[in-house]
Amino acid sequence: MHGRPTFRTKKIDLVSDRPVAVLNVKDAQDMSIVAQDRILIESRGKEIVALVEITSSLVGPGCMGLRGGVLDHLGIREGDEVVGVPAEKPQSVEYIKKKMDGGRLTKDEITAIVRDIVRRNLSDIELAAYVSAVYTRGMDIEETSYLTKAMVETGETIEFSRGPIYDFHSVGGVPGNKITLMVVPIAAAGGLLIPKTCSRAISSACGTADIFEVLTNVSLSVHQIKTITETVGGVIAWGGAVNMAPADDLIIRAEYPLQIDPHSQLLASVLAKKKAVGSERLVIDIPMGPGTKVPDYPTARKFASDFIKLGETLEMEVECAITYGGQPVGHAIGPAAEAKEAMAALEGKKVPNSLLEKALGMAAILFSMDGRADPHGLAKELLTSGKALEKMKEIIEAQGGNPDITSDDIQIGEHKYEYVSRKDGYVKGIKNKAIVKITRAAGAPKDKGAAVLLHAKEGDSVDPGDVLFTIHADSERKLRDAVSVAQRLNPITVEGMILEQIPPSHRIYSEPGIHTEQRGDRAA
Amino acid sequence: MHGRPTFRTKKIDLVSDRPVAVLNVKDAQDMSIVAQDRILIESRGKEIVALVEITSSLVGPGCMGLRGGVLDHLGIREGDEVVGVPAEKPQSVEYIKKKMDGGRLTKDEITAIVRDIVRRNLSDIELAAYVSAVYTRGMDIEETSYLTKAMVETGETIEFSRGPIYDFHSVGGVPGNKITLMVVPIAAAGGLLIPKTCSRAISSACGTADIFEVLTNVSLSVHQIKTITETVGGVIAWGGAVNMAPADDLIIRAEYPLQIDPHSQLLASVLAKKKAVGSERLVIDIPMGPGTKVPDYPTARKFASDFIKLGETLEMEVECAITYGGQPVGHAIGPAAEAKEAMAALEGKKVPNSLLEKALGMAAILFSMDGRADPHGLAKELLTSGKALEKMKEIIEAQGGNPDITSDDIQIGEHKYEYVSRKDGYVKGIKNKAIVKITRAAGAPKDKGAAVLLHAKEGDSVDPGDVLFTIHADSERKLRDAVSVAQRLNPITVEGMILEQIPPSHRIYSEPGIHTEQRGDRAA
Repeated sequence: MHGRPTFRTKKIDLVSDRPVAVLNVKDAQDMSIVAQDRILIESRGKEIVALVEITSSLVGPGCMGLRGGVLDHLGIREGDEVVGVPAEKPQSVEYIKKKMDGGRLTKDEITAIVRDIVRRNLSDIELAAYVSAVYTRGMDIEETSYLTKAMVETGETIEFSRGPIYDFHSVGGVPGNKITLMVVPIAAAGGLLIPKTCSRAISSACGTADIFEVLTNVSLSVHQIKTITETVGGVIAWGGAVNMAPADDLIIRAEYPLQIDPHSQLLASVLAKKKAVGSERLVIDIPMGPGTKVPDYPTARKFASDFIKLGETLEMEVECAITYGGQPVGHAIGPAAEAKEAMAALEGKKVPNSLLEKALGMAAILFSMDGRADPHGLAKELLTSGKALEKMKEIIEAQGGNPDITSDDIQIGEHKYEYVSRKDGYVKGIKNKAIVKITRAAGAPKDKGAAVLLHAKEGDSVDPGDVLFTIHADSERKLRDAVSVAQRLNPITVEGMILEQIPPSHRIYSEPGIHTEQRGDRAA
Repeated sequence: MHGRPTFRTKKIDLVSDRPVAVLNVKDAQDMSIVAQDRILIESRGKEIVALVEITSSLVGPGCMGLRGGVLDHLGIREGDEVVGVPAEKPQSVEYIKKKMDGGRLTKDEITAIVRDIVRRNLSDIELAAYVSAVYTRGMDIEETSYLTKAMVETGETIEFSRGPIYDFHSVGGVPGNKITLMVVPIAAAGGLLIPKTCSRAISSACGTADIFEVLTNVSLSVHQIKTITETVGGVIAWGGAVNMAPADDLIIRAEYPLQIDPHSQLLASVLAKKKAVGSERLVIDIPMGPGTKVPDYPTARKFASDFIKLGETLEMEVECAITYGGQPVGHAIGPAAEAKEAMAALEGKKVPNSLLEKALGMAAILFSMDGRADPHGLAKELLTSGKALEKMKEIIEAQGGNPDITSDDIQIGEHKYEYVSRKDGYVKGIKNKAIVKITRAAGAPKDKGAAVLLHAKEGDSVDPGDVLFTIHADSERKLRDAVSVAQRLNPITVEGMILEQIPPSHRIYSEPGIHTEQRGDRAA
């Protein structure tokens, strides 16, 4: 190898969306390069830095394997020659190491990490080290603020021609939490601008995007989100269809397999998406209880306080509501079932009181931030008068759906199984995570009809033979899968006649302006 | 999709040596599977669990992309059908999470992690989380012992027909440390059995395997290591050629890009390789000083004490020597140059005193462990009498090299550059890491002739125009590269006439039975 090493390019299929250069083991040895090193590839003035992978079979000596996308970036075709020289790893890897060592990162360091994540410059190993470091070492509010801003700056943003822009977010972890489908139309019916973006399920039964998709299209462009918000007032769009705070999905790619959700990363992810969409006043629902992301009250307070502080650094006014999340919200879990229950609520039909109260409470906080008199009364009036339902129809139509859809039109999976109580007693607990696993086994979030319908909730008394819950699925096979999961996990605990003393973590917490959740609610 | 989902297989080129299944995005959505999930692939009674990657282009719906090796494992050909159902991630991921959370791992948990590493069951993300967790949370001696045993059990081992088996290891980080090429022949000439395995450079200038390869073949089988040890007494073999403690290389794959070397992982890696080769009595050289893995005396003592304690749990007798590693050992850095300097020492030629003393000191500890009278005198006698040189020739021949090779036969890169002092004064410091970078830029470890030869060491007085060091390279281009690195890094500091007071970290440490290193040594 004399002069600068040149390689004949070979187009190879790689799953990775990063720039990767596949070298023959012999060339790698000649260049003293090992796997996971970087190589600078140049061709006629264009260049790219790629992560090196080493093969003894895919490409021969003198040859470099590249994805089609990398060839395109370099403006070359397979077989063209490129120059390849060893390159340093990105500076951001040093900063990740600094965080692993417990250091505090500067604005520039955090910005460099986020940029390299978005540009696909970090390997899976480096990305995993980043999320691990943030998980074990944490970040203070200032670092989290730099992180949030960097996540916003590296993606698309929306600027509205008028404001203020309101928004709502649920921290997640509690199944059946379809309240977004009620909060957004109530708020918009009251004249607020609320461009709500939401996600699909990764490990939950269904995300708000999965639920609202039962009613209308959720894949909107940034332009559509802006226009519909400015004309209709509200929108419920899938965040994955737009390139806002794109670092988030890339970071989740490393968090998800490790089942970690580092506190400061969670704060940054939520507020970055809200900031990108232009939100100025935000209400955050923090469901608390076993099986949620927030197991106890001190943790919930920490979340609330951090969201508020972080919001201040981003010039966002944030209010938080700590809600009871120890059991599912309402009775329905699953995309179609949740859409049906939310529509029924808007239509004034009988739905669980807890669901109504939670949605009204959240809308009321939004109205109070807008300085409205009697915000709770206003929310209730908008719901009972049918104005929120009318607004929902407008939103559904603006997003491309049929505005005439009613809760009765929404079909839940035809194959069903009733899970009955074997003894008499009281429902002592409903395991959120077990309910999620059953619903997923039944086909959620992909199969819209997959559902668990609860017939009893915490504190309800049941007799032997009473139905505790029904599982619905679109196919017989998935129903069987879900039933077998249910039998293994036994998601509802029924205990003897004497209810044990309620421990503090099961109590109801209320704060000024924050709504409370009832225990043992039945349809109201 | 009815019944169990079946896929038509497509053979695709993947760099990963893990089982990976590439699914079309549509199928993944249908199955509620995301990237990094697992899938159980079955075909006619054979099965494998693979990591899922998702594509919109490489394979179409209904199709599963697999490497040739995975098709072979399943006993099928491209185009054959397989069944694929979502599978749980390995239990070991839970244990990695436990360590991230600061938990203490049990024997079974650690064994599960190591087995999954060796079976290629963990993704890069999971592996990186493991090394990050061990780095930030640490392991106690008991956990480290389980780790070491698991690393031994998951690879090949050697059982010798007689013993005791001696061994020697240098923790590394100090350039020019070619003493293994002296310690092994001296020990073997004294009748000890010493099957030394060693590594190639990853980020250093050269490993012992790179150096000894200048003199003979280092890729030996387990059988050859056993036979040569039992007949000749000593062997110096590349550990990468055998499958002993294979977890180590797989773990390094994640440590190297992050430039981390977690304490307990390092302890386990060293002792697992020694245990696998059957070592019962082991001397460990711990070079200490700026630019090494052991910056200060407390760290060195911690290493020594942990190696000894860990050795006890493995029924290995371990002695440690803390040596001065703040500057390179001897004068030569680079594969051929180090082989030449070591051979010159065995031939009784003039070599740096520090090199001689360090090698003799290590050999003396081995002899003292064998209960020999006057171990230091014995080591010296074996060297000066030429018996160690004779043994070295036997080892070279047994491994397949030419036993008649002398230090004069060994050629160093013909292209050279002399780096001179611009002022008079004393050499205050030699930066190990800068020396390594210059030698690597000159072509090491691949180009055997690449070298840095030091003409002055710490404490030596120099005049303007005196040569501080010479860079050698096999090509003009690499020489230019190395010179430019040298000019940028300025690896040798020359200061005014008054030497500052020696701070404790530069002092010479001696312990009973542990040899000391001289400062400012010239050729003796």
